[in-house]
Amino acid sequence: MPRYKAVVAYDGSEFFGFQVQTKNGVERQRTVQGELNRAVNQMAKLPTPAIKVVGASRTDTGVHAFGQVVHFDLPFDIQPEGVRKGLNTLLPRDIMIKQVEKVADDFHARFNTHAKRYIYRVSTQDFTDPFKRRYTGHFHWRLDVARIQAALPDLLGEHDFASFAASGNQTATTVRTITRADVEVKSDEQEIVFTFEGNAFLYNQIRIMVGVLLEIGNGRRDVHDIVRLIAVKDREQARFTAPASGLYLDEIYYDAPVVDK
Amino acid sequence: MPRYKAVVAYDGSEFFGFQVQTKNGVERQRTVQGELNRAVNQMAKLPTPAIKVVGASRTDTGVHAFGQVVHFDLPFDIQPEGVRKGLNTLLPRDIMIKQVEKVADDFHARFNTHAKRYIYRVSTQDFTDPFKRRYTGHFHWRLDVARIQAALPDLLGEHDFASFAASGNQTATTVRTITRADVEVKSDEQEIVFTFEGNAFLYNQIRIMVGVLLEIGNGRRDVHDIVRLIAVKDREQARFTAPASGLYLDEIYYDAPVVDK
Repeated sequence: MPRYKAVVAYDGSEFFGFQVQTKNGVERQRTVQGELNRAVNQMAKLPTPAIKVVGASRTDTGVHAFGQVVHFDLPFDIQPEGVRKGLNTLLPRDIMIKQVEKVADDFHARFNTHAKRYIYRVSTQDFTDPFKRRYTGHFHWRLDVARIQAALPDLLGEHDFASFAASGNQTATTVRTITRADVEVKSDEQEIVFTFEGNAFLYNQIRIMVGVLLEIGNGRRDVHDIVRLIAVKDREQARFTAPASGLYLDEIYYDAPVVDK
Repeated sequence: MPRYKAVVAYDGSEFFGFQVQTKNGVERQRTVQGELNRAVNQMAKLPTPAIKVVGASRTDTGVHAFGQVVHFDLPFDIQPEGVRKGLNTLLPRDIMIKQVEKVADDFHARFNTHAKRYIYRVSTQDFTDPFKRRYTGHFHWRLDVARIQAALPDLLGEHDFASFAASGNQTATTVRTITRADVEVKSDEQEIVFTFEGNAFLYNQIRIMVGVLLEIGNGRRDVHDIVRLIAVKDREQARFTAPASGLYLDEIYYDAPVVDK
C-alpha cells in the first residue's frame, strides 16, 4: 500500500468545509474530504469508505485553499503523475490536485505539520465587486493601514490566543505561536492582503484576528489593543469575525523532508 | 424625467443572460435586466414595470461584464452618485453599478453605440483551476500562440461574418467591422487573453471566433483558415463555440460625447 501526499486547491464557496460530516453514517453535506474520498476510491476501484483521505487542516465552510495537503494509501503502486491526472479527471471542477508525490508510510498530513500559512484578502471598494464576492472579505469603512501595520507585531511570538478562539474551539490549550503577520496593500485592486504563519491556529482564529485588525485600522480600537486582548483571555472581547470568503489556506510546512521511495 | 446612463459590471455565472425573458408576462429566469429593473423601480418607489432599464448589449447566459452600459429615466432629479449608491444597496452582490451620469434625453444605450470591446480569457492549465472555472474558457491541448498571432489580422476590417454567427442570429446583415483583434499571453497565470473591438458582433460571434483561433493554435486548422471561413459564409464550418464563462463585455463606446445636463 504505497502512501501518497497531494497538494490540493479548492474554491470553498460551495463546500460545507473540508471535513466529512456524517449523521447515522450518511454524509449530509458536500465536503472537500467527501469528494476526495469518492475520487480516490473510484480510482482504486474500491467502495468509497475503503480508503480514507486525511487532510492537514479542517478548513471551515466557505474557506478556500491554494495548498491544502492530504495523504492516502493506494492498493497499487502507480506514478504520482498518473494519480494527479486520474484524480483531477474524477474530481468536480471546484477541487484541483496540484501535485502528488509518494511518501514514506509514516508520513501523516495532519500530525507531521510544522507550520501553516494562511492569507486573507479584504476588498476595500465601497460596494462588493461581483467578481470578488466569493473570494474576499469586504470592508468599506475608513481604513488606516499604517495603524494595522503598527498592530501586527503584537501578534508575533507565543501567546495564549484564548480571546481569538471561536466558541467551537475544543483544543486542550489556546497557546499558539505566530511567526509571520503582515499586510500588503494592492491599490490597483482596492484590496489589502494579510499573511499569517504559525505552528497552528485555533478555530476561527485568523478570521477573528482580521476582524480586530480591521477595527484597529478603522480607529474603533486602540492600535495596541491586541496586547490587551491577549492578556484578558476573554473571547467576548473580539466579536467581529471576518467572513470565510476572504480566507485561504495557502501552504502547509512539514517537519521532516518528504522521502520519495 | 431626467435620464441616467450607468456602467454596470456583473458576474454572469448565475444569470440567464442580460435580457428579461417573460412568458405570459411572467419572468421565468433570473436576468441582469430583471434585477436592474427591480432595483431602479424600487428606488423610484414605483411598481416594477414602470421604469424600464435599456441595455447596450444583450449578453448571453454565463457571459460577464466589466462595462455593460444601460440607461433609464427617473421620476425625480437626484445626483448621479446618489443613484449609484442607492442602486448598489438594492442590487444583489453579483451586479455592481460602477458609474452613473446624467445624460441628454435622447441618449440611448443601445442605439447610440459606436463600438464595443470584448475580452475572452482562456486558461491553458492541464486541469481547470477551481478559482477560474467560472471566469475563463479552458484549452488544455497544444497551443502555438504564434499561429494565433498570425491569424488574428485576418479578422480585421469589414467582412461578412456569416460563418461566425450562431444559428440563433436574426440580424438583417451579417456584415460587421472588426477594428482590433489581439491576444496577450499571461504566462504566470497560464492564461491567454483575447481582445476584440468592432462596431457590433453577431450572436455568439466572439465565442465562435475564439473557437476557430484555438483550433488554429492547436494546428487543427490552417493558419489562414479564417480567410476561407469568411469566404464560404457557411455556419457549419466553425462548430466549436468557446464557452460563455471566458467572455467579458469590457467597454461600450458611444458616438456623441455624453452631455451632462
